[in-house]
Amino acid sequence: MSASMVFTDCSSSTNAARLLPLRRRSPLLRTNNGVVFPRRLINPIPPRSLAIHSSSSPSQLSWGEIAAEVLRMKDAIGTVPGLAVILVGDREESATYVSKKKEACEVVGINSFEVHLPEDATEQEVLNSISGFNEDPSVHGILVQLPLPSHMDEQNILNAVSIEKDVDGFHPLNIGCLAMRGREPLFVPCTPKGCIELLHRYGIPIKGKRAVVIGRSNIVGMPVALLLQREDATVSIVHSRTKNPEELTRQADIVIAAVGKTNMVRGSWIKPGAVVIDVGINPVEDKKKLSGFRLVGDVCYKEAKEIASAITPVPGGVGPMTIAMLLCNTLISAKRIHNFQ
Amino acid sequence: MSASMVFTDCSSSTNAARLLPLRRRSPLLRTNNGVVFPRRLINPIPPRSLAIHSSSSPSQLSWGEIAAEVLRMKDAIGTVPGLAVILVGDREESATYVSKKKEACEVVGINSFEVHLPEDATEQEVLNSISGFNEDPSVHGILVQLPLPSHMDEQNILNAVSIEKDVDGFHPLNIGCLAMRGREPLFVPCTPKGCIELLHRYGIPIKGKRAVVIGRSNIVGMPVALLLQREDATVSIVHSRTKNPEELTRQADIVIAAVGKTNMVRGSWIKPGAVVIDVGINPVEDKKKLSGFRLVGDVCYKEAKEIASAITPVPGGVGPMTIAMLLCNTLISAKRIHNFQ
Repeated sequence: MSASMVFTDCSSSTNAARLLPLRRRSPLLRTNNGVVFPRRLINPIPPRSLAIHSSSSPSQLSWGEIAAEVLRMKDAIGTVPGLAVILVGDREESATYVSKKKEACEVVGINSFEVHLPEDATEQEVLNSISGFNEDPSVHGILVQLPLPSHMDEQNILNAVSIEKDVDGFHPLNIGCLAMRGREPLFVPCTPKGCIELLHRYGIPIKGKRAVVIGRSNIVGMPVALLLQREDATVSIVHSRTKNPEELTRQADIVIAAVGKTNMVRGSWIKPGAVVIDVGINPVEDKKKLSGFRLVGDVCYKEAKEIASAITPVPGGVGPMTIAMLLCNTLISAKRIHNFQ
Repeated sequence: MSASMVFTDCSSSTNAARLLPLRRRSPLLRTNNGVVFPRRLINPIPPRSLAIHSSSSPSQLSWGEIAAEVLRMKDAIGTVPGLAVILVGDREESATYVSKKKEACEVVGINSFEVHLPEDATEQEVLNSISGFNEDPSVHGILVQLPLPSHMDEQNILNAVSIEKDVDGFHPLNIGCLAMRGREPLFVPCTPKGCIELLHRYGIPIKGKRAVVIGRSNIVGMPVALLLQREDATVSIVHSRTKNPEELTRQADIVIAAVGKTNMVRGSWIKPGAVVIDVGINPVEDKKKLSGFRLVGDVCYKEAKEIASAITPVPGGVGPMTIAMLLCNTLISAKRIHNFQ
């Protein structure tokens, strides 16, 4: 048995795009209005043995509708959504993420603002930048790129972001609303939202399914577990203190790995036919690469793809969805602030 | 195999009190200072087959230290903690709960305030009462007895309670902090806190254990799952959409049932030796009772006690712990507001 679908953004793929009609997506992404986007977000290779929804007709996704909405808003009220990113220090990885986010903003027409502070900046300098963006009416989303230098109090800094502009969705008030039935958060954290979007877009049912989330971080594991539960999955969270992570994971119809350990989830952990979302992005040495390393996930892809019915690759699976969700949250924020429907 | 410990408050029991030394309890409850309390909170019958911590020496719990702390605070700064309860309508059950809470306040010396509004009161009247208590410096905790009449917006009303006085811990900001690693809520919801306290007091290990929470309500299921996870249990939540609740529950070392369905959890759901906390309080017809009904839990006690190593009875298990935690939260609130250590 081998993976019937691979969620990927390999835009260079020569496989015939075989994409499934979108289900339960946010209205923003419901149609493809033809705006060109440089990478296809999702481009599965043809199913090999387990075909999910093999009767579905091909489709294609783009960030077109976000761009269209941005344009419509500009035409109607003269406002362009704006995303501000605060980067502290010179971590190469962080710089790459930030430049990807900026690039994505450009593509869909969202204004981007950036403050880049040196590694030895003071906490107060970061707080001053946040305060400036909080008050700036042209900024609708504020993102502090993590991790911060160790001499800074992350919680204190994240708390300073105005809840109306917290497009990362990490404010405890947002998380609380995410956890509670009958409440709606202002923003859903981007990576967890991206994981669920992937499932929706591929028509993978969540309701009533057993889901195992590996990892319980504030930014992925915990919120994605809350989201899965909102979708009526039966959720278990596996973490460093779990005694038989393999045994429990093997019960899952949906596995979301977000733990940051290279190839931790082996093929034997996966129930045949399960759907696997790999959130891990771990650099491993690779002398064949110019950079000297390549990125791998938390799941041993080679083994898991032989057993899962669908799996996201690393890189190219969850990453691009995270950026899409960030753009989406920024647009939502601008619309809400300007009361634009 | 039969339950070795029954968590109960049967103060009329003639069994020798065989209580375990307290572990990891809140500082408030660490010692018994001899203040007399009318009911023993926890009074297990002697273990029958599976003895947990059989080497532990007997001990006894009381609300003594809360009373002592209240007194110490009064002597030191002249302030007595105050709890305000808002009751709307004439539901007999609600009235009983409220009177139990008032009684408990009296015992430990906490001032209690009550507003009782008629069933046909307006939402605005409830909001006015809350607003009054929010501003009243002699009130440190505000509790709106649920359920509210159907013509009222529960969320709107609960949101009106000042977060500093939200001793029920239901504010989404509190729940968010409960969900997040590295954050601390102002208040932990009383019933979930009571469940964990019971486990601690009986020295039942949580770390690394498989826990199944049955039910995902905002007031019990979800927060108790978050608390168990904070204690390093591996948590799964079973709910109405779960396909094999029995199978999953049978994997658990700790089962917490909070679903509101009479005898839903049968003996066959319990792993031999598991610990069972039954939060359900369901009235069933009983012509032998003066009231015409008796209260039973979500767990079929008769069956489960033969299989579990420890189980809470209904009534008398979780209920008294909930009230204890409410007193505890009120004291914590008063101390925080008055910056009293």
